[in-house]
Amino acid sequence: MTVNYKVVLRIMGILLLVLGFSLIPSLVVALIYKEYNCVPAFLYVIIPCLVPGFIIAKNVNRSMLKMKIRDGYLVVAMSWIVASFIGALPFYFSGSIPSLVESFFESASGFTTTGSTLIPDVEALPRSILFWRSFTHWLGGMGVIVLIMALFSSLGVSGQLIASAETPGPTMDKLTPKFSDTAYNLYRIYIVFTAVETILLCLGGMSLYDSLVHSFGTAGTGGFSTYNNSIAHFSSPYLQWVIFIFMVLCGINFNLFFVLKRRGLKEMLKDNELRFYLTLIGATACLIYMDLMLTDTYTDSSACLRDSFFQVGSIITTTGYATADFDIWPTFAKMLIFLVMLTGACSSSTGGGVKIIRVLVCLKLIKRGISLKIHPNRVVPIRIGEKEISQEVATGIANFVFLYVFTVFLGSLLISFNGYDLVTTITSVMTCLGNIGPGFNLVGPTCNFHFLSGFSKAVLSLLMIAGRLELFTFLMLFSPHYWNSNRV
Amino acid sequence: MTVNYKVVLRIMGILLLVLGFSLIPSLVVALIYKEYNCVPAFLYVIIPCLVPGFIIAKNVNRSMLKMKIRDGYLVVAMSWIVASFIGALPFYFSGSIPSLVESFFESASGFTTTGSTLIPDVEALPRSILFWRSFTHWLGGMGVIVLIMALFSSLGVSGQLIASAETPGPTMDKLTPKFSDTAYNLYRIYIVFTAVETILLCLGGMSLYDSLVHSFGTAGTGGFSTYNNSIAHFSSPYLQWVIFIFMVLCGINFNLFFVLKRRGLKEMLKDNELRFYLTLIGATACLIYMDLMLTDTYTDSSACLRDSFFQVGSIITTTGYATADFDIWPTFAKMLIFLVMLTGACSSSTGGGVKIIRVLVCLKLIKRGISLKIHPNRVVPIRIGEKEISQEVATGIANFVFLYVFTVFLGSLLISFNGYDLVTTITSVMTCLGNIGPGFNLVGPTCNFHFLSGFSKAVLSLLMIAGRLELFTFLMLFSPHYWNSNRV
Repeated sequence: MTVNYKVVLRIMGILLLVLGFSLIPSLVVALIYKEYNCVPAFLYVIIPCLVPGFIIAKNVNRSMLKMKIRDGYLVVAMSWIVASFIGALPFYFSGSIPSLVESFFESASGFTTTGSTLIPDVEALPRSILFWRSFTHWLGGMGVIVLIMALFSSLGVSGQLIASAETPGPTMDKLTPKFSDTAYNLYRIYIVFTAVETILLCLGGMSLYDSLVHSFGTAGTGGFSTYNNSIAHFSSPYLQWVIFIFMVLCGINFNLFFVLKRRGLKEMLKDNELRFYLTLIGATACLIYMDLMLTDTYTDSSACLRDSFFQVGSIITTTGYATADFDIWPTFAKMLIFLVMLTGACSSSTGGGVKIIRVLVCLKLIKRGISLKIHPNRVVPIRIGEKEISQEVATGIANFVFLYVFTVFLGSLLISFNGYDLVTTITSVMTCLGNIGPGFNLVGPTCNFHFLSGFSKAVLSLLMIAGRLELFTFLMLFSPHYWNSNRV
Repeated sequence: MTVNYKVVLRIMGILLLVLGFSLIPSLVVALIYKEYNCVPAFLYVIIPCLVPGFIIAKNVNRSMLKMKIRDGYLVVAMSWIVASFIGALPFYFSGSIPSLVESFFESASGFTTTGSTLIPDVEALPRSILFWRSFTHWLGGMGVIVLIMALFSSLGVSGQLIASAETPGPTMDKLTPKFSDTAYNLYRIYIVFTAVETILLCLGGMSLYDSLVHSFGTAGTGGFSTYNNSIAHFSSPYLQWVIFIFMVLCGINFNLFFVLKRRGLKEMLKDNELRFYLTLIGATACLIYMDLMLTDTYTDSSACLRDSFFQVGSIITTTGYATADFDIWPTFAKMLIFLVMLTGACSSSTGGGVKIIRVLVCLKLIKRGISLKIHPNRVVPIRIGEKEISQEVATGIANFVFLYVFTVFLGSLLISFNGYDLVTTITSVMTCLGNIGPGFNLVGPTCNFHFLSGFSKAVLSLLMIAGRLELFTFLMLFSPHYWNSNRV
């Protein structure tokens, strides 16, 4: 069995169509703000996307159903690379970012909802370009493929297979018999969140444009802002708390919102991952708050509390917005931020990172390891809540965590050619692989990635995509097994 | 079934006896070098060890055979804590180290073969005290319990159980039917290595005292030197290469030397862990050599080669001797040193760290994870060489690695109260937990741990012991399961 290239090509066609349409709102923004010099940059991308997209999409039919999981992996990995490339073109054509590699970095950072930027002065860029930059967060947050599935229900059952290769876009516990319906339902929640946040931000005095852009960044847990000092630009506590709440909401397993709707809050809060996630945010933020107050880093207690919660929420959900520079905080606070950088948000949320559920399973494995040493012959199952985790799933999770750590090391080795300090080197890789945004030292919250070499920018771009696809889907394409397995 | 305190107490008695006798050579050194002010410091420890030791040892009998694995864990954990405490007393009584916590740190660093020191000026200390300091490496290298087993064969079969709780002291593949014989054989190799190295160093012009002290540090993969600039004090390339070779030898699974003796080098080199270990040393050192030459860090090519190999060998075997300050090397070289800091040496060697075999299994798990994603229903066994690793063993290894990483984070959080930079904080924990010696930045190869707070010194001391006992044995004692399981 070889890869079904016909199917792959067709889905790429649909992707072009989707991307072409997605660029239209940014074109409209360019027209509204009279940024006429940006109009060609968008048109040069929209037209070459829509024309072949239409031709291919017309030919999509039930033959899609033959798609196998192997094709799914290729489709998913390719569509993220293609989307990042096409998304980079408006930056490049408009002259906003002078180099193609840098444009790719910025676009990949957008689609993967990383939010690391290499633009030193964001405020100098045209508004339509910044709108597109943040809109990529929104598109990428739910997963490009989930979007395609939601739009083209004709792709049918194979859609679920493909989407499973695209975790973490919210995936689904078979909520509805038809996958495309589930994808559609997930998008409904996503759109409602974005809309409600936009309205709440507008009510707090933010302009419609700013509200939209920052809602895109929040819903997708991305983190691009239109201001150089990110959310710190808006000094209003109300606005900061609104963004904080929506960041935390978007870090929750989206399927739980269905549970909330159907069975109420009590049932939703029974989810162990959610409880661990909320506890971790609360505990970490409170510890940081105490540390900041005890070390006299802050004098204003309410600002300190807000900044503690905001930064923890921003990093754990892998959003990356900033209201304060945690890089100048005391070491204990920094260590806590470093910790939540690794855990990431809940599974099936729009956030990245290792994910809370995996951390939970690892902690349970440790606990089991200790009791197995005391009673070597006892059978100790791993339980998350009432669910028993099978040995296979536990091993799968262990594999993932090892691969994650291994990728961090390999990536750091490549970045270390640049000769920056260890903290910059390692945290730049961690923040890109985890789709977070800021790291420490030279890539701290007040810095940007502009100073890195072209090679490092390329490596980090690929790491963002690898991280967004939870590594295996991406790395599989480099495995000879993948391409040769028809011989087996 | 509760803990058998009688047995535990008796073995502690034997331990006192062993420690008492172990202090006598240092007393002799004090007499030779006429350091009469140190004589009482040793006598005050030797006499209170030997007297109760003799009384208890006389009562040791076959009732020992009733010891269970649970008792073994307690015995092992306690004996390391007791040994570190008693070993600390000569430092304290002689006034060489003014505080008891600091003396405990230095002694724990010795017994656990870590080699991190907090003495700013080693050369100012009496020679007998430095002799004792290095002799703790030699005692700890093979494991305190293995030593007791070798000496008191009457303890019988239960010895194997206890020793298994003390990994990594070299453990045994049941080479001889009687465990005490195996322990004896292992000690023979250990003594031969120490003697041969001492002779070779003497032949290179080192004094007998220096040769002995540095052989203790090498054989135990400890790293205490009697000079402030460690092995860099001896500019002779011959001496540095001799020490390098013995460091590498002591990082090899000791059981393989039996294989070498009985079945030859070819059979020995079939061991996958050994091959990976030697390849890793070679590859890492060559990459560092190239990096150092390309960045013009060195002009002398042979010195560069020597320093590259020495530092890699020193860190991977967790010895910690230094001929150069890797903390001022370029970032790529530093990243490579950081990598081998994590891997550690081979299982059943005198070295610490995660151990090569575990890293190998983790890499195999990653590989298997990728092929399982492509062929979800295929059964893919994990093989190291020809041996198949059972799912259980793989899970056990995964547990260990998670616990290791988790301990690094928890330890770093505690150390971060001190407010030093992240690199210092995290690498000080890594180097103590892995029983290595130096870290980066403020705890780099040319620095010492003197500046840390008393709290941090206590935490790091416990981490050294926890690391030496491969975590589970140590942490188990903090588990309520351990103490309550008679209720189960």
